Amino acid sequence: MFRTTVDLNCDMGEGFGHWSYGDAPDSALMPLISSANVAAGFHAGDPNQMDAVVGLAAEHGVGLGAHPGYYDLQGFGRRTIKAKPEELVNDVVYQTGALREFGRRHGIALQHVKPHGALYMDFAVSSDMSRQLVDTLQATGPDLFLYCMSVSETYRIAREVGQPVIREFYADRDYDNSGSIVFARKMRKLDPEEVAEKCVRACVEGKVKTVDGDDIEIPFESICFHSDTPGALAIGTAVRAQLTANGVTIAAPSHTS
Amino acid sequence: MFRTTVDLNCDMGEGFGHWSYGDAPDSALMPLISSANVAAGFHAGDPNQMDAVVGLAAEHGVGLGAHPGYYDLQGFGRRTIKAKPEELVNDVVYQTGALREFGRRHGIALQHVKPHGALYMDFAVSSDMSRQLVDTLQATGPDLFLYCMSVSETYRIAREVGQPVIREFYADRDYDNSGSIVFARKMRKLDPEEVAEKCVRACVEGKVKTVDGDDIEIPFESICFHSDTPGALAIGTAVRAQLTANGVTIAAPSHTS
Amino acid sequence: MFRTTVDLNCDMGEGFGHWSYGDAPDSALMPLISSANVAAGFHAGDPNQMDAVVGLAAEHGVGLGAHPGYYDLQGFGRRTIKAKPEELVNDVVYQTGALREFGRRHGIALQHVKPHGALYMDFAVSSDMSRQLVDTLQATGPDLFLYCMSVSETYRIAREVGQPVIREFYADRDYDNSGSIVFARKMRKLDPEEVAEKCVRACVEGKVKTVDGDDIEIPFESICFHSDTPGALAIGTAVRAQLTANGVTIAAPSHTS
Amino acid sequence: MFRTTVDLNCDMGEGFGHWSYGDAPDSALMPLISSANVAAGFHAGDPNQMDAVVGLAAEHGVGLGAHPGYYDLQGFGRRTIKAKPEELVNDVVYQTGALREFGRRHGIALQHVKPHGALYMDFAVSSDMSRQLVDTLQATGPDLFLYCMSVSETYRIAREVGQPVIREFYADRDYDNSGSIVFARKMRKLDPEEVAEKCVRACVEGKVKTVDGDDIEIPFESICFHSDTPGALAIGTAVRAQLTANGVTIAAPSHTS
Repeated sequence: MFRTTVDLNCDMGEGFGHWSYGDAPDSALMPLISSANVAAGFHAGDPNQMDAVVGLAAEHGVGLGAHPGYYDLQGFGRRTIKAKPEELVNDVVYQTGALREFGRRHGIALQHVKPHGALYMDFAVSSDMSRQLVDTLQATGPDLFLYCMSVSETYRIAREVGQPVIREFYADRDYDNSGSIVFARKMRKLDPEEVAEKCVRACVEGKVKTVDGDDIEIPFESICFHSDTPGALAIGTAVRAQLTANGVTIAAPSHTS
Repeated sequence: MFRTTVDLNCDMGEGFGHWSYGDAPDSALMPLISSANVAAGFHAGDPNQMDAVVGLAAEHGVGLGAHPGYYDLQGFGRRTIKAKPEELVNDVVYQTGALREFGRRHGIALQHVKPHGALYMDFAVSSDMSRQLVDTLQATGPDLFLYCMSVSETYRIAREVGQPVIREFYADRDYDNSGSIVFARKMRKLDPEEVAEKCVRACVEGKVKTVDGDDIEIPFESICFHSDTPGALAIGTAVRAQLTANGVTIAAPSHTS
Repeated sequence: MFRTTVDLNCDMGEGFGHWSYGDAPDSALMPLISSANVAAGFHAGDPNQMDAVVGLAAEHGVGLGAHPGYYDLQGFGRRTIKAKPEELVNDVVYQTGALREFGRRHGIALQHVKPHGALYMDFAVSSDMSRQLVDTLQATGPDLFLYCMSVSETYRIAREVGQPVIREFYADRDYDNSGSIVFARKMRKLDPEEVAEKCVRACVEGKVKTVDGDDIEIPFESICFHSDTPGALAIGTAVRAQLTANGVTIAAPSHTS
Repeated sequence: MFRTTVDLNCDMGEGFGHWSYGDAPDSALMPLISSANVAAGFHAGDPNQMDAVVGLAAEHGVGLGAHPGYYDLQGFGRRTIKAKPEELVNDVVYQTGALREFGRRHGIALQHVKPHGALYMDFAVSSDMSRQLVDTLQATGPDLFLYCMSVSETYRIAREVGQPVIREFYADRDYDNSGSIVFARKMRKLDPEEVAEKCVRACVEGKVKTVDGDDIEIPFESICFHSDTPGALAIGTAVRAQLTANGVTIAAPSHTS
C-alpha cells in the first residue's frame, strides 16, 4: 500500500465581513479534515472570521495552517501582482503571523503554511520566490510544514534546504500526463464517490488516471479538496468515508513520520 | 530619586508604501530609545516597512512592541470606528501577530503591545474593551507588557488581572491637574532642552507642572515621545542626554524589576 | 387615496469580488423596482459588480441611485467612523461620482443619492452633516433626489435648501409611535403578503400600524425593501403585485410631479 | 517652429491620508502647469486630498485630468496586477467618475484621463486593453483627451477610433533611439535649466537627443514633468520660464486646435 496514513486538507474561512463563500459552512467541513488552510486577510478572511475558524480548528483538533494570498480581495487572490519576491514574502510573513496569533489565543500551534491561489502557483514556478520563502521560514518557523505541488520549485527548494514539506494530491482537480493540474475555467459538478475512489486509488496504488487516459505515479502526503468546489461537503464526506473504509488513516502530518 | 531606570519609547514605522512620516527617519531615532511601538498595517505600516523597522530594532537591541490601530489608513487611526469590543480586540490580535512574526524573522521576541491613536484613547475609557483586551493577552501573551496611560481602565484592569503593564509619561504633551494629557489641535514647536528637563524632573521627583501651573505627582515606568512631533530627533537626543547625565538609566522594561 | 403613484426602491450590488449577498440575485429583483440604490465600493460593491448592476438598471429602465457608505467593507458600513462631516461628504462625493460614471457608460443619468447603513442614520440625526451634504449636492447635482427618512435632519435641510428629496416608507421594518423604525437585531422571516398589505394601506390611507398597536400617519414618496431581507424576492413580488392590483402605479420619482 | 503652443502637465495629489509625496507641494506646482493629472484613490489620493487638489486646479484654471492607477496603495501603482482588461477598464471608469465628481463640485469639467504608472505602461503595449479603454471612453466621455506615449497602442487605437488623444514629451526622462523612455532605477538629480532647454528644443525643432547621442524626431502635444522628481518645483519653474521666453504659449489642449 502506497500510503496507510494521509493528511486531508481544505481551505477554510474564505469569506469576508458579512460575506461567506462556498455552499458548505466551515463548521460542517472542519470535522472531516485533519488540516485547515485558513485565509488570513489579504484575499479573504477578516480578523473576526479568522478567530471563528481557528476556534473551530482547535475544537476539532485540526492542524492549523496559514493560507496567505495576494493582497487582492476583489480578485480573491487569483490575480498575480508583479511585486518583488521580497515584498511577497513579507506579505506571507505578515499574514502567517496574524493567523498564528489566533492560534495562540485558542491554544494551538501553527502547523503549516500554504500560499493561496495565484501566489501558490507563482511560488511553484519561481525558484527565486520559493528560495526567499523557504529561507524566511527557516527563521520564522523551521518546524512549519510548507504545502505545495509535487512538481514545483517550492518543493525542490524546501527539500534542498530542509524545510518540512508536504506534497498535495488534488481530489477535485484533473491531472495531465506531466503530473500538473488541469485548470478548468468553470468547475463541473463532481461525483463525490468518484472523487473518493480516485483518492483511495492514489493512497493504495500511488497512481492517478490523467485527462489523457494514462496512469501516472503521483507522490503526495496530503489530499486537498476545496471548500468552494460545488458539493464540497458531500465530497469531503465521501473521501473521508472511503479512505477510512479502505484502511487509510486520516491524520495531520507529523515530524516523526 | 523617583526612578533610576526608565524606559524610553517611540512610535516607529508610521509610513506606508512609498510614503514616510515625521521629519526624522526611524534609523536616526532607533538608537535613542529602548522600546519601539511599530505600526502594524491598519493605520500605517505595510509589511515591507514593518520588516525594515523590526530589523532596526533587532540591530539596536530595542524592545519590540506592536502598535495596533483602527483600520483607518486615511485617518491615520485617529478616528474611532464604532465596532464591537470583540471585533476591535480581534483587530489587535491580528496586527500583534503580524508584527510578532517579523520579530521571529529577526530573532527578537515581542515585548509589548501599545494601541495607537483613537484606539489607545478608546481602550483607556472603556472597561469592557480593556477587559476583553487583557483577557485575550492572558491567552496570547501573558508576558507581554501592555502600555497605557496611568489614569485609564486599561491600567486598572491589567493590574487587576495580572497582565504586565507599563504606564507612560508623555514628554511632548502637556498635562492638566487631573493627570490627563491636554490635546492640542496643532502641535507647537517644542524646545528639546525644556522637554528633557521635564523628563528629568519626572524621574527625579515624580512630578510634572500642569497647564494650570500646579505640580502633580505622576507615576510612570516609560517615557514616550512621538516620532511625528516636529523636532522629534532633537527631542529624543536631548531627553536621552539629560536623563543619562542625571543618572537615569534608559532601559526596556523587565519582568524582574 | 394618499398616493396613486409610488417609487419602489431596493439596495443592489451588495456583494464584493467573488462574494454575493442576499438570497435573491440582482437580476431577479431589478424588474420589480423603479429605483436602485447601488453600492459604490466602500461598504460593498466593486467596479465590476457596479458595472453589472448599472447595466441591469439600464436594461430595465430603473432609476439609478448611488448608495455611498462608510469605508468599512468588514462591517458592511454598519459601523460609524467618527470622521469630520467634510471628510464624510468627500467620501459621498467620491462614491457618487464613481457610480455616476458607470451610468454614463450605460447611457443613464444618475437619479438619486441614498447613503447606506450607519452613514444614512448618522446623516439623519446630524444637521451639520446633512447641511454639508445638501450644500454639496447643490453644486454636484441640484437635480439629484436625496433619499432619507421622513423624520430626519436630512429631510428638513434638503427641503429648506431646495434639494429634491424623497422620503422612504420601509416595507420590511416596523415602526414605533414616533414614526421611527424599530431596529431588530435579527430579522424575523416576514410574510410577503402581509408586507404587501402594509404597503397598500400606506399608499391608500397614508397610515401604518406601529409596534405599539396604534395607527400613525406616515408621509413618503418611495417604498423601500431590502435585498438582504430573507425572502426579499417574494416580498418584492408581492408588494409590486398588490400595489398594482390596488391601482397604485410604481414609478421612479419625477421632478414635475 | 514645431509647436507655438504646448500643454504642460504634472501628476498631482499623490499623497494619502496624512502622507504627502514629493518635495514640492501641489499648491506651488499648480500655477506652473496647464493640466493636472489627479490621483484618484487606488494608487494614491484619498477623497479629501482629491477635493483639495481639484480646488487648486479650479482656482488656477488648470485642465482637470483623472489619473487612475492599479489598486495598489502599497506599491504606488507601480506593480502590474494581472487582471482582465475589462476589470482594469472598470477600475478606470470608477476612478475617473470619482475624480470628475469633485470637478463638478468645484465647477470645472473633466478634461482628460491619463493612466498612472504600471497601468499607463501596460495600456501602452496592449491593444486589447487600449481598445477596451478607448471604446469605454467613447461612451463615458468622447470629448475626454486620453494622454499617452507617442509610441503606444493607446495612441494608435485612440486615433483609429476617434478619441481625442494627447502625446506626451517627458521633460524629466531620457529617450533612446526608438523614441521610448529609458527607465532609471533611481532618478538622478536633474539640472532644471538643462531640462528646460530640452523642452524648448523639442518645441522649436521637434527633436530630442537620445541617450545614444543621436537626434530623433519626437511628436507631442503636451510636456510632462513629475511632481516626485527631485527638484520638481525648480524644473517646472524653469520649463515654464524658458518656454515663455522662447515664444511658446503654455495652454491646456483644445478641441478646436
